[in-house]
Amino acid sequence: MPTTSARAAYEALVARGLKLDLTRGKPSPAQLELAAPLLAMDLSHDYRAADGTDVRNYGGDTGLPELRAIFGDLLHIPVEQLLALGNASLAVMHDTIVHALLHGVPGGNVPWRDDDVAFLCPSPGYDRHFSITEAFGIRMIPVPFDEDGRLPLDVIAEHLKDPAVRGMWCVPMFANPGGEVYDEETVRALVSLPAAAPDFRLFWDNAYSVHVLTDEFPPVIDVLGLAADAGNPDRVFVFASTSKITMAGSGVAFFGSSPTNVAWYRKHASVQTIGPDKVNQLRHARHLQDADGVRALMQRHRAIIQPKFAAVERILQERLGTPGSGGVARWTTPAGGYFVALTGPAGTATRAVDLARDAGIAITPAGAAFPYGEDPDDAVIRIAPTFPALDEVEAAVDGLCTCLLLAIEERA
Amino acid sequence: MPTTSARAAYEALVARGLKLDLTRGKPSPAQLELAAPLLAMDLSHDYRAADGTDVRNYGGDTGLPELRAIFGDLLHIPVEQLLALGNASLAVMHDTIVHALLHGVPGGNVPWRDDDVAFLCPSPGYDRHFSITEAFGIRMIPVPFDEDGRLPLDVIAEHLKDPAVRGMWCVPMFANPGGEVYDEETVRALVSLPAAAPDFRLFWDNAYSVHVLTDEFPPVIDVLGLAADAGNPDRVFVFASTSKITMAGSGVAFFGSSPTNVAWYRKHASVQTIGPDKVNQLRHARHLQDADGVRALMQRHRAIIQPKFAAVERILQERLGTPGSGGVARWTTPAGGYFVALTGPAGTATRAVDLARDAGIAITPAGAAFPYGEDPDDAVIRIAPTFPALDEVEAAVDGLCTCLLLAIEERA
Repeated sequence: MPTTSARAAYEALVARGLKLDLTRGKPSPAQLELAAPLLAMDLSHDYRAADGTDVRNYGGDTGLPELRAIFGDLLHIPVEQLLALGNASLAVMHDTIVHALLHGVPGGNVPWRDDDVAFLCPSPGYDRHFSITEAFGIRMIPVPFDEDGRLPLDVIAEHLKDPAVRGMWCVPMFANPGGEVYDEETVRALVSLPAAAPDFRLFWDNAYSVHVLTDEFPPVIDVLGLAADAGNPDRVFVFASTSKITMAGSGVAFFGSSPTNVAWYRKHASVQTIGPDKVNQLRHARHLQDADGVRALMQRHRAIIQPKFAAVERILQERLGTPGSGGVARWTTPAGGYFVALTGPAGTATRAVDLARDAGIAITPAGAAFPYGEDPDDAVIRIAPTFPALDEVEAAVDGLCTCLLLAIEERA
Repeated sequence: MPTTSARAAYEALVARGLKLDLTRGKPSPAQLELAAPLLAMDLSHDYRAADGTDVRNYGGDTGLPELRAIFGDLLHIPVEQLLALGNASLAVMHDTIVHALLHGVPGGNVPWRDDDVAFLCPSPGYDRHFSITEAFGIRMIPVPFDEDGRLPLDVIAEHLKDPAVRGMWCVPMFANPGGEVYDEETVRALVSLPAAAPDFRLFWDNAYSVHVLTDEFPPVIDVLGLAADAGNPDRVFVFASTSKITMAGSGVAFFGSSPTNVAWYRKHASVQTIGPDKVNQLRHARHLQDADGVRALMQRHRAIIQPKFAAVERILQERLGTPGSGGVARWTTPAGGYFVALTGPAGTATRAVDLARDAGIAITPAGAAFPYGEDPDDAVIRIAPTFPALDEVEAAVDGLCTCLLLAIEERA
């Protein structure tokens, strides 16, 4: 039974009639202002890429070399192995799976659609990854991170003995929602482990490689080089984008891989399109300048969003106690990325999110970060603090704590 | 045996050492200059759509209503049935087929990938359409236009009795490469004819609806309304784009269809992407203003390209004689679009194109406009006069005539 005080606190929260939203992992208007030069830039007399290409016309399936060079530097990918594409890396991932389903991938014998196909899904993870594999009927195998945010390499090694396992979703840096960063040992293992399927692929979504919440940019591990060294040069498809660097809806996506895989992607993409929007790519190259230009810009993002993450942490600690020392929950304190994962006692997440909704605080549905929307412990709540203003973040997280505390007491 | 004069004319042509290109159906730099306002526009203080949406951020899978309204007017499609999407209508067509292959379409029982699937292909047609269906192993059935540029409706009716026939490529106005315009009788028949497959679809690529070469804009037939009237509301997928209205590589593509089909497309697209590039869409809406704004712009395009088409026609007539009155070839005189189709005697096209290549004049490979690249008569040559300068068009077409005349004599 809930104590009078937990119930009373919740009723007081409801009475406030809040209307807040912590669901959206998207940049705030203040962050989008950092992209103003992209919107103001006049290219009407200056529409040629460095190689002389008229960016207004058709063609150029690889994207602009000068923009690929900037992100090749950041991602440790040779420019000829990195393509600059459309406005959404999600679409590049989706289309890569489509090409695999309908045509197969290098090293494989059949189109995936003609076979039993499973993906390993580190969990919690990115709901939109899981939506793609679910939509295509690809069997998803959850692989829980351990409590230290590490992947269980022994479990993965065991799964890879199953020839149905053809792919694995990976967010190697500042993962959504847990903020995990793969260390070099993990990366070496993932590119080296024996796999029964000759066409097993890591879907390496390096969405947040430069999206730091400190003044430090951790090294981006050369996953393609390590894979080649391990004798598995074609194992990795790398994805990235500028969505949370420049403009969320109007950025540029990237695909990087081995020469064989890049040729495979270009072959199938050439049936789909004559080429990406090179005008937007030229704007991006001019705006970002070089890898240091990107890092400087990301520090300006950090200045806007880090106080929001600090507020989340402060309020969680004030309201929920110290994790491991009598506190009722634990949470991540990410050094980058867009999310905080809050883990309460088993069986409380759905109830807490429902209570929050009824109090006018929108929280991502419990379970959303797990394959098929199923959190086996019903424990993880995803907090996305970047979009709302600081005072809204504070009010929403404080209200969420009130809801979680009531949900915990209800179960007691 | 060739006459001495045809051979000598060809040798003189080779001796000129030309380097010309008639292959590319793309806008000329002068046409792209018409889009300069898109490149110069400053949206940095003005980034909201008419409904208040911040176009810089994520979301908005339908595209901007004000841009959809402009093209809804032009295409006779209610705005709620028209989506504004990415930079390439080819990609929208490709992805529509992908969704059909992997999920099926409304009214159908199975994903197309699990069935024998065939497409009707009016021929000659657009090579990139045929590349998509070929890449997916969809059986292509050529349906030749008659000499008056009309579709043989009786032949089509017969094919539609085959339940494998699930799609038909249609370019209803100023088709590539023959310039054909479907009349209302043809459109009514296509949306009305009984089809054995309950999920038969017309892939209605209205790529050139406003791309006129005269001062007249022919009415755009309300194909969705006629289909609904005929009791086949879901039969038509309409595609269009601004690629040859604004910028070829950086335009906006459109998908229009019945409410059921639009919901189907959005459902599958929502797995693929969070939304299209709304910044580019806002630029387009501001630049084009309304349907009349588009038509006025297309008259400026016409002023640039119509003289090139006139030169093609004049030179063909001078060099090849009057069709039907002792001339050795016939050709189209399109009232819109981007191409002229030149038809010589059977068995001459490949040879003429090869001769032209050796004389430094690049012509689209013979057969390219036919399914599987196979022109049964080896007779059709596609001429794309928009991109080169006028004097280059003249020199290239004159040279091509020299090549065709030699090819004809060689066969005599």
